[in-house]
Amino acid sequence: MASDPFDELLEALRCLPGVGARSAQRMALELLERDRDGGSRLARALTVAMRDITRCSNCRNFTADTLCRICRDDRRSDKVICVVESPGDVLAIEQATGFDGRYFVLLGRLSPLDGIGPEDLGLDNLEKRLAEAGVSELIIATNTTVEGESTAYYLREMAARHGIRVTRLAQGVPLGGELEHTDRSTLAHAFSSRLPLHR
Amino acid sequence: MASDPFDELLEALRCLPGVGARSAQRMALELLERDRDGGSRLARALTVAMRDITRCSNCRNFTADTLCRICRDDRRSDKVICVVESPGDVLAIEQATGFDGRYFVLLGRLSPLDGIGPEDLGLDNLEKRLAEAGVSELIIATNTTVEGESTAYYLREMAARHGIRVTRLAQGVPLGGELEHTDRSTLAHAFSSRLPLHR
Repeated sequence: MASDPFDELLEALRCLPGVGARSAQRMALELLERDRDGGSRLARALTVAMRDITRCSNCRNFTADTLCRICRDDRRSDKVICVVESPGDVLAIEQATGFDGRYFVLLGRLSPLDGIGPEDLGLDNLEKRLAEAGVSELIIATNTTVEGESTAYYLREMAARHGIRVTRLAQGVPLGGELEHTDRSTLAHAFSSRLPLHR
Repeated sequence: MASDPFDELLEALRCLPGVGARSAQRMALELLERDRDGGSRLARALTVAMRDITRCSNCRNFTADTLCRICRDDRRSDKVICVVESPGDVLAIEQATGFDGRYFVLLGRLSPLDGIGPEDLGLDNLEKRLAEAGVSELIIATNTTVEGESTAYYLREMAARHGIRVTRLAQGVPLGGELEHTDRSTLAHAFSSRLPLHR
């Protein structure tokens, strides 16, 4: 039973997030009945990606080269660096904003209790970039969790040592959200941080 | 851009049913960040399955061998054959019932308008099985669609020619369902086909 190719495929599909027994079965049958080319293409793409994708030597984002696509892009500005926790955050900011500076991907957050210190997040590399290049602004886009906030605090101190302006993503009620369904701490923060409305 | 391994992985993941741009991104990041072994295992399983899985020469179900696991199983009875439309139906019946006979998988349904005739569904093979072996019952488990019903009618005639008893899955209101939410034609059928309640 263990070496049956169909069972093995069902089992292997379940490593994908959000895929349980029923979805795995639906996926396997769909590929076998209607899209074998797609299945083979996915097998090749997975093989290449798992083998070749490593971290960018400059910003720690995922890439199959030494430098990622964003670090290689000459048209982007070196003056602004945006610090995020994960490669998914880079994709989210790229898709939502017109940001044309550089990134630094922590691949985690400071968490002394778990033994995760500044070196584990490559912050020594980031400090070198702050010291060398003509960086004028560090945008902190870590998550608004306890660890994200303490990481932000650490980054703020680091930037201050190099006389670099530090900004943090604005916090408040989400656009298109209803006040009624906004969680209490977000609403409390947004209320106390209210801004003058200009005409 | 086309040959970037990350983009290619995102693109390839979208051949899976129910996976859009956002899920593909979540899956790719999850595998790269936390489960590269799982990703590689999935690549191997897909390669083997897409290459090796074909149709059972006896029942047309998916298998990597000449005969599928069910056709090879000596402990199952040859006297009853259950006809279904797809390999997914075999899995559903195996998981839900204690059926211990054999199957025949049509891999489709009769549809003269689409040019799908009895030969395309391997019904000549099925008729040979009905003629040779000591088959006593043919269970028709095609879907309750127009094509499924006309396929059922064709199978009934075929079994009758060989003097074999034919049964069809019971139709009615689903267990655990609420009458209020049962579709009108199912309810009408169940009402007119009501059965005496024995004590």
